[in-house]
Amino acid sequence: MEYRKIKDEDDDGGTVSDDIENLRGKGFPGVASVSNVPPREQAKWKRKTIVTLALTFLTSLQAILIVWSKRAGKYEYSVTTANFLVETLKCALSLAALARIWKNEGVTDDNRLSTTLDEVIVYPIPALLYLVKNLLQYYIFAYVDAPGYQILKNLNIISTGVLYRIILKKKLSEIQWAAFILLCAGCTTAQLNSRSDQVLQTPLPGWIMAIVMALLSGFAGVYTEAIIKKRPSRNINVQNFWLYIFGMAFNVVAILVQDFDAVMNKGFFHGYSIITTLMILNHALSGIAVSMVMKYADNIVKVYSTSVAMLLTAVVSVFLFGFNLSLAFFLGATVVSVSVYLHSAGKQQR
Amino acid sequence: MEYRKIKDEDDDGGTVSDDIENLRGKGFPGVASVSNVPPREQAKWKRKTIVTLALTFLTSLQAILIVWSKRAGKYEYSVTTANFLVETLKCALSLAALARIWKNEGVTDDNRLSTTLDEVIVYPIPALLYLVKNLLQYYIFAYVDAPGYQILKNLNIISTGVLYRIILKKKLSEIQWAAFILLCAGCTTAQLNSRSDQVLQTPLPGWIMAIVMALLSGFAGVYTEAIIKKRPSRNINVQNFWLYIFGMAFNVVAILVQDFDAVMNKGFFHGYSIITTLMILNHALSGIAVSMVMKYADNIVKVYSTSVAMLLTAVVSVFLFGFNLSLAFFLGATVVSVSVYLHSAGKQQR
Repeated sequence: MEYRKIKDEDDDGGTVSDDIENLRGKGFPGVASVSNVPPREQAKWKRKTIVTLALTFLTSLQAILIVWSKRAGKYEYSVTTANFLVETLKCALSLAALARIWKNEGVTDDNRLSTTLDEVIVYPIPALLYLVKNLLQYYIFAYVDAPGYQILKNLNIISTGVLYRIILKKKLSEIQWAAFILLCAGCTTAQLNSRSDQVLQTPLPGWIMAIVMALLSGFAGVYTEAIIKKRPSRNINVQNFWLYIFGMAFNVVAILVQDFDAVMNKGFFHGYSIITTLMILNHALSGIAVSMVMKYADNIVKVYSTSVAMLLTAVVSVFLFGFNLSLAFFLGATVVSVSVYLHSAGKQQR
Repeated sequence: MEYRKIKDEDDDGGTVSDDIENLRGKGFPGVASVSNVPPREQAKWKRKTIVTLALTFLTSLQAILIVWSKRAGKYEYSVTTANFLVETLKCALSLAALARIWKNEGVTDDNRLSTTLDEVIVYPIPALLYLVKNLLQYYIFAYVDAPGYQILKNLNIISTGVLYRIILKKKLSEIQWAAFILLCAGCTTAQLNSRSDQVLQTPLPGWIMAIVMALLSGFAGVYTEAIIKKRPSRNINVQNFWLYIFGMAFNVVAILVQDFDAVMNKGFFHGYSIITTLMILNHALSGIAVSMVMKYADNIVKVYSTSVAMLLTAVVSVFLFGFNLSLAFFLGATVVSVSVYLHSAGKQQR
């Protein structure tokens, strides 16, 4: 069941971080204060901060729910049905938000649900990429174990940075690139344990699969941002609705391929508990937070947000579950903190 | 014998790095090229590079000799006699260099050996600080083991940076401070092993002693730089001669206190081998290189130089001794490399 839980954990980004933009407003040394910024920019910055903090909080909570569910015992629920319910819930929440908007503002070109083929044709692509990545995930465990896979998943950070630069053509300054390398090194360091060195013995096909999966994951993220940002005035709830509709469709395929027998024999909700329900709810909310970060911030903020959330989760787990923090964790957390500072300080250079 | 070897290893700085100034000349992106710099500056830069590379090379070699001597079997030589011979050799080499200078240039105010009380009174201080630190070293092993002490010794990096700022009143830019924190975290990460977490269980007196020792070591380094730089025109060999004379004197005290019986019973050179002789020679040369770096560069360059040397040593050991590099080493080396880049890039900010 171990690898299925990890899959579960990965769907919305896996790990989490604080909003670096945030530091701008707090008069961080050497960075322009928010008081010099016009009100419209301030409102934008506020929205960006809120969605980023929400993502950080929800991702931390998610990881804590996973630890909690593991300690409470193994749940033999099917991950594909859970993923389907997450997509359905996200769809329902987007529709509910739209219904409220239609009631208050009326139906406009930007918030109507109907769409053109030209607009909708790209929406299945991220869901398809995630599907391929999730399928590969079942095969990579022939080469690495679950903790090793957690280490290799940090390659996502680098692939997101590179694809962000190539596909979205947005520039990072040299200092920001240095910060991004540090973020990857710091997150990996924080996760080191006595068995981590086994990762270095991963055979070549394992490395290739890990790199392909990092590229698929990075590409899906960057492509989602490209889709959402292509029509800046389009209501985010409409964009989410179409993203999630295809997410639902692909998860139906996944249920049929992977868990058809289990669902038929044991039922759709076999093994569900309160924790499972909370995890599905949290997953849906953090999925929406990811979309919001893509709309109002970008993939770089998302990566920092999920990385910081990973650290927060570890610290919170000390209090909740009596976990011990390792020296490697402190060193990794230091490197990630410096990386967050450098990303902000490097902005001036750009 | 383990702790005595470590003491031995520590006297000239312990670990090693590449010259960051170096990057300036090589047209590192965003940093002024050497071609825009006047010839006098170029000569200065060249001298700085040479002494820094020499220090890096000698420190790497030293660590390799230590590993080699450990693998060749335990040597029961007395560390205090070896330290005395190192100081004597440094003194002799300084005198030899001076003799050549007197022959070529004649005796001037700057290169004459005779001195004033005002000049010489501060010279015993670094040697005294090292003596106190080395004495403390024998007591800290009541609280931490040798590998744990190697980890704690990275506190030297932070103490050197802080004392460099306070005593020499030289400024580092914010980016350079970030780089310095990363250097400390990176070096520690590179040294992590499965037992490193025990360091976190170090009792409070152990932590206090480690911090005091880091401050003593940092203070001795910064104070040496202050002494040497106070009279820029004074010949470095004269300055070294006076530093080392007091080094010899304090080591005589150390022999009398710690190893008087052993020397009397077994003889001064008991347990000496070819490797011991090579280590003493290397120690003397790297001691002189440290002084040169203090004269022509600074403590920050010294710290980077010794840190990079630690990484070089590990890589060379893979080929020489068939060591395996850990994932932690790769992560630490990445963080140290980014730190070297940031130190250079942060120069513009200052």
